[in-house]
Amino acid sequence: MGARVAVAGASGYAGGELLRLLAGHPEVEVVAATAHSQAGAPLGAVHPNLVSLADLVLTETDPDALASADLVFLALPHGESGALAAALAPQTKIVDLGADHRLRDAGQWARYYGGPHSGTWTYGLPELPGQRAAIAAASRVANTGCYAVSVILALAPLIAAGIADPDDVVVVASSGTSGAGRGLKPHLLASEVMGDLSPYKVGAHQHVPEIKQATGAHTLSLTPVLAPMPRGILATVTARPVSAGVTAADVGAALAEAYQGEPFVRVLPAGAWPHTAATFGSNAAHLQATIDVDSGRIVVVSAIDNLGKGAAGQAVQCANLMLGLTETAGLTANGLAP
Amino acid sequence: MGARVAVAGASGYAGGELLRLLAGHPEVEVVAATAHSQAGAPLGAVHPNLVSLADLVLTETDPDALASADLVFLALPHGESGALAAALAPQTKIVDLGADHRLRDAGQWARYYGGPHSGTWTYGLPELPGQRAAIAAASRVANTGCYAVSVILALAPLIAAGIADPDDVVVVASSGTSGAGRGLKPHLLASEVMGDLSPYKVGAHQHVPEIKQATGAHTLSLTPVLAPMPRGILATVTARPVSAGVTAADVGAALAEAYQGEPFVRVLPAGAWPHTAATFGSNAAHLQATIDVDSGRIVVVSAIDNLGKGAAGQAVQCANLMLGLTETAGLTANGLAP
Amino acid sequence: MGARVAVAGASGYAGGELLRLLAGHPEVEVVAATAHSQAGAPLGAVHPNLVSLADLVLTETDPDALASADLVFLALPHGESGALAAALAPQTKIVDLGADHRLRDAGQWARYYGGPHSGTWTYGLPELPGQRAAIAAASRVANTGCYAVSVILALAPLIAAGIADPDDVVVVASSGTSGAGRGLKPHLLASEVMGDLSPYKVGAHQHVPEIKQATGAHTLSLTPVLAPMPRGILATVTARPVSAGVTAADVGAALAEAYQGEPFVRVLPAGAWPHTAATFGSNAAHLQATIDVDSGRIVVVSAIDNLGKGAAGQAVQCANLMLGLTETAGLTANGLAP
Amino acid sequence: MGARVAVAGASGYAGGELLRLLAGHPEVEVVAATAHSQAGAPLGAVHPNLVSLADLVLTETDPDALASADLVFLALPHGESGALAAALAPQTKIVDLGADHRLRDAGQWARYYGGPHSGTWTYGLPELPGQRAAIAAASRVANTGCYAVSVILALAPLIAAGIADPDDVVVVASSGTSGAGRGLKPHLLASEVMGDLSPYKVGAHQHVPEIKQATGAHTLSLTPVLAPMPRGILATVTARPVSAGVTAADVGAALAEAYQGEPFVRVLPAGAWPHTAATFGSNAAHLQATIDVDSGRIVVVSAIDNLGKGAAGQAVQCANLMLGLTETAGLTANGLAP
Repeated sequence: MGARVAVAGASGYAGGELLRLLAGHPEVEVVAATAHSQAGAPLGAVHPNLVSLADLVLTETDPDALASADLVFLALPHGESGALAAALAPQTKIVDLGADHRLRDAGQWARYYGGPHSGTWTYGLPELPGQRAAIAAASRVANTGCYAVSVILALAPLIAAGIADPDDVVVVASSGTSGAGRGLKPHLLASEVMGDLSPYKVGAHQHVPEIKQATGAHTLSLTPVLAPMPRGILATVTARPVSAGVTAADVGAALAEAYQGEPFVRVLPAGAWPHTAATFGSNAAHLQATIDVDSGRIVVVSAIDNLGKGAAGQAVQCANLMLGLTETAGLTANGLAP
Repeated sequence: MGARVAVAGASGYAGGELLRLLAGHPEVEVVAATAHSQAGAPLGAVHPNLVSLADLVLTETDPDALASADLVFLALPHGESGALAAALAPQTKIVDLGADHRLRDAGQWARYYGGPHSGTWTYGLPELPGQRAAIAAASRVANTGCYAVSVILALAPLIAAGIADPDDVVVVASSGTSGAGRGLKPHLLASEVMGDLSPYKVGAHQHVPEIKQATGAHTLSLTPVLAPMPRGILATVTARPVSAGVTAADVGAALAEAYQGEPFVRVLPAGAWPHTAATFGSNAAHLQATIDVDSGRIVVVSAIDNLGKGAAGQAVQCANLMLGLTETAGLTANGLAP
Repeated sequence: MGARVAVAGASGYAGGELLRLLAGHPEVEVVAATAHSQAGAPLGAVHPNLVSLADLVLTETDPDALASADLVFLALPHGESGALAAALAPQTKIVDLGADHRLRDAGQWARYYGGPHSGTWTYGLPELPGQRAAIAAASRVANTGCYAVSVILALAPLIAAGIADPDDVVVVASSGTSGAGRGLKPHLLASEVMGDLSPYKVGAHQHVPEIKQATGAHTLSLTPVLAPMPRGILATVTARPVSAGVTAADVGAALAEAYQGEPFVRVLPAGAWPHTAATFGSNAAHLQATIDVDSGRIVVVSAIDNLGKGAAGQAVQCANLMLGLTETAGLTANGLAP
Repeated sequence: MGARVAVAGASGYAGGELLRLLAGHPEVEVVAATAHSQAGAPLGAVHPNLVSLADLVLTETDPDALASADLVFLALPHGESGALAAALAPQTKIVDLGADHRLRDAGQWARYYGGPHSGTWTYGLPELPGQRAAIAAASRVANTGCYAVSVILALAPLIAAGIADPDDVVVVASSGTSGAGRGLKPHLLASEVMGDLSPYKVGAHQHVPEIKQATGAHTLSLTPVLAPMPRGILATVTARPVSAGVTAADVGAALAEAYQGEPFVRVLPAGAWPHTAATFGSNAAHLQATIDVDSGRIVVVSAIDNLGKGAAGQAVQCANLMLGLTETAGLTANGLAP
C-alpha cells in the first residue's frame, strides 16, 4: 500500500495539485485530506478534475485527522503551519508548502511576513549542494517559494561559481494566477486578468530574503507580475558578471555542471529559450543563459510550473526523499502541451 | 521492456500527446517517431515539453522506420493513412487517429472528405456496447473523431434506450485550438483567437456521418465553434424526447447505466455540470443532462480533452486493449487543473 | 454642453462601459455616477482605464444624486431598478439596463426572476419593427438582455417572415465573463475560467421569456456557456424551417431586408461568419445564416459585444433616440481587433 | 472633409489599427489603403471589425495609389519604407511606423537591423522635451518602436533629472502578440501562445539603440517576453539611483513634472500600479515608480497598448501635429476594459 500521506489545506490550488500527484503516485496512499470552510464536502465538488478521488470527503484541519499519516503536507495560509506542526507527533514527517519555516533570520521573517517566527526547517530544494541528503535525513522540511525556486535555480550556481556579482542582481518574474491562490479577490477575477499584465508588491516581495539566503546574493531587486495564464513562472534573472571576461559559454557551463544528472532541471540546448508552457503540469525547470550584448550583463531565464516545481511537485520530490522512496516517483519532467 | 510502439506523424499535436502518454506508460516502449518536414530533428526541438524524450530523433515517415513496432499509431493528415497502412505488415497492429477508416459508407466519405475511400476498420470507442471486445480482437482500429466522441458518448445511450428522437438532434460544440492542428493558418494565430469565438464549417461538418453511424441518429445539426483555449471540447447535445413523459431522471439513469463501471466516463452528481478544464490532460469524459423547462428538449452536456479522450488518450486506450495490456495503463481520469 | 446624463451603478462592468461611451460622446455631459460599496472613491480607482474621468467621485445611489440629469442609466442588480425609478421625477428619462421592466407577463417574471414585478417599459431594441419610434417617444425604456439581443436579432426576422418554425428553436450561446458581472464568485476566478468552457443555468435561463416575447417564438431551448474571454457573445440559433423549400438564400434575404440601412447590424457577405472579436468594444451585431445540409435546419450565428450591443452600447443608442440626439452619436460599429 | 490621409501596409495589425482610428477621426478622410498580398480584397475581408470601411478595396502599395494624400502612414516591414518614401512627392507628409528612419547612427542600424540605412527622420515622440514642436514642423516623422516608447517614457525624465544612473539600466518588458505582427510563424499559433510566456531576442533586441538615443542611457539590458494576450506592453524599468539619497518621492516628482499637462501620459496616484488592460485600445501610457527596499534600485513600471501609444495611436498623434489639427483628435486616453 505504500507510505501513508495526508494533505492539510486540500481545497486550495496547491492542495489540489498535491492530491493529483499523489493519486498517480505508485508508492503512497492518501489517508486524509483536510480543509476548513469546505470540510464535509466530497473532493469531487471542490476539485472536479480529481475523478479518482471524487468521493473522498474533506475533513476539518485538526491533528487527529492527520495522525495516521507517515507524512503530512501542509498547504495552509502563511502563519498557520507552526501551530498545526506543533500538534503533530514528532515521528510524523512534515513538508510545509507555506513560508513559515523557510527563513533562518527571524528579523527577515518579521519584516516581510510579520507575526512571530515559527522557526527554521530544512530547506526543500534538493538541487542545492548538499541539500538532497539533508532533506532525506530530515523529518521537517520547508518547501520552496514559487518565485524563489525559479530564481534560485538560475542564480545560485553563478554566484557559487564566482561568475555573478552578488551585489547587483535584478529579477523580473511573471506568474500565472494559481500562484495567487483561490481566495476571492477582485483583481483575480477572470474579467480583470485576461488580456492583462499587472505588477504587484513592487519593490518589496517576501521571497527576496529566501532567495538571498539560498543563493548568497547580497541585494536583489525582484518585481513580480501577474500574467494571464493559470500556471507558470517565467523569471528573467540578470546579474553583473564579476569580470568583463565572463562569456555566455562560462555561464552555460556553470549551469550545466550544477545540474548534471538532475532529473528535473534541464539546461536547454544552445539557441532554445525556456517558456512556461513546456513545463505545464510537470516538476521540471528549464534554464538558458546568455550575455547581453549592450550592457554585458548575465541574463538567465528560467521557467517552471508554479504548482509543480514551484509547489506541489517540489513537495512530493522532498517527500519521496524523506520517505526513502524513489526520488522521481509520481513525478514527471514532461510538461503538458499545448 | 513491454510492447514496442511507434508514432507516425509525431510532430503534430496529437502525435506529441501520444508521445507524452507513451513516455509515462509502464508497459510500452517507444521504438520510433516519424515526421515529414521535421524529420531529422530531435524531439526536444519539436515538443520542448517532452524532456524525457528530448534526444529521440524524428525519422522520415516510411514503413521501414515503423517495421519493428508491435503497434503503430498513425497521426497523419486525412487521406494519408491508407497508403502507409497498406505498406505495413499484417501482423503490425495499427490505431489510425485520422478519419480515413471510420466510415462504413463510402458515399458519406466522398461527400465529406472527398477522394477514394480507404475502407472501414473497427471503430475505436470501447464504451459502445460490444465494442471493447471488438477492439481487443482487432489488428486495425479507427480512432474516434474528437467532436464525434464528445457527441456520441452523450447521445448513443439515449437513442439506444428509446428516450431521444433520432430525427431531431441539434448539437453545438466548441473546441480548443489544438483540435485544428499545428498548421500555419491565419485564423489560428494567437492574435486572432484570444478573446474570440468563431464558428466554422457551419452546416456541414465531417463528423456528422461518424456520429450518425455510431449513435443511430437519423439527422443531426452540428455547429462547431473555435474557442480561445488550447484544449477541450464542450458539446451541448439537445434532442427531442420520444414522449412528453421523459424526465431528467430518465435521461440521467440511461447515462448512468450505460457507463456504470467505465473508468473514463463520469456522469456527474446532480447539479454539477461538465466543464472542459476538469478533463484537461486526461482521458476522461464528463456528462450531465436535464430537460429544458421551456422547450421540453433533452439537453446533455459533455466535456472532454480533444487531445485526450478525443484523440491520443482514446488511441492509447484502444492500443492497450489490442495489445492485451491493462486498459487503463498509462492513462488517467484525473484532469490537470487549474 | 449637451444633454445631462447620470449613471446609477457605475462601479460594475456595464456602468464602466456606459461611462467610457459617454466620456467620448459629443452631445452629452456626465453629471453624476453613483455606486454603493464604492461610494466616495474616485472613478480612477474603480475603473483605472477611464483616464478622462479619473477624478470624478462616485456618490451613493440615491435619487438626489441623480436629480439634475435629463436622463439616468440604471445599471443595478435585478430587482433594484423599480424602487429607484419610482423615486425619480417623471420628466427624468430612464434607460434601465436591468431586467426589471422588460417582460410584459408578470407570471414569467415571477417564474424566472422571482419577487414582485415592477411593470413593463418600452423595449429598448430599435431594430425591431416600429420600436425605434416607440423608444424615441418613451421616457422609460427597458434595455435588452445581453443573450436576448444576440438571439432576437438572429431570429425575429425569420419568424416574422414565416420562414422559421416558432415551435422548434434551439440556441446555444457563449458569453465572455463580463456578462457575469464583477461580483466575487469562485467560478469567475481567472484560474477557473482560463482554458475552460462551462455551461450554466442549463435548461432554464431567464432570457427565454424575453426572447419569446420579442420574436414570437413559442418554445425555445437556450443553453448558455461561459467562455474564457472578457467580452463577447456568440449565439448559434437553429430553427426548423416552416417548409422543406426554404433555402439559405431565403434566410439571408430575410435578414438583409430586416436590417437594410441599420447602422449597427451587419449581415456578413456570403462565406463570412460572425466572430466575437470583430465586435469587441463596438455597438455592432454581425449575422450570417445557412441551411444545415444534414438536418435541413436553419442555422443563424450572431456575434455581439455583451457590454456593447448587449448592454451599454444599446443603452446609449436608446438614450440618443429618447433625447433627440443623433442615434449613432458616441457609438461605433467598428470593433477593436486584434 | 478634412485632411486626406492614406495607409500603406493596411492589412497588418498596425495598419488595421490606423484605419480604425482614422475611421473615427473627425478631421481626416481616408483616401487610400494599400497592401501587397491582399491587394484587391475589400477591407471587410481583411479586418472584419472595420464595419464602416468594409467596402474599401485594398490597392497595391505603389506611389500612385498614395499620391493624392496629404499625409501617408507607412506600416511596412522594416527595410521597405525608404524606397517608397523616396518615390513620394516632397510635399506629401509621411509618418513611418517602421524602424527605418529612427536611428541617427548608421552603425547601430547595421548592427541591429542590417542592410543599408535609409536616413534619419524627426523622432515621433511628442512628450520628449522640444519634440512636439519639431514634429509639428516636420514633413517626415519616424514613429517610435513599441517597446521603445514604453521604456523611454519611464526612463528619459529620470536620466534628464540626474536621478537615474545612465550606466546601469535593466529592463524586462512583455508584449501582447499583435506586436509580433500578422505573419504566419509557428510560435505565434494560438495553441503555442495561450498559457505561455516566452522570451525572445534575449540579450540583443533592436530597440536598444533607439532607447539609448532617446533617453541618454549609456548601457541597457532589455529582455522582451511574449505574453498570452493580444495587446499591451508592460515594461519594468529599473535603474541604479545616482545617489543613495534618491527617494520614491523624488522619482515620482520627476515623472509628474515631465508629464504635467500631457493628455496621454498618466502618472498614477500613490499605491496604484499600471496594468496593460487599462490602456487597451487607447493612446495612453500609465506610469508608477518606487525604490526597491532591498536593492535600493529605482523601479518604474509603464503600461501601454502596443498598437496604441506603441504604434498607431502615436502615429495619429504625430500626424495631427504635422497637419495642424488638434493633437488629440481621433484619439482617446480611455482604455477599453474589461
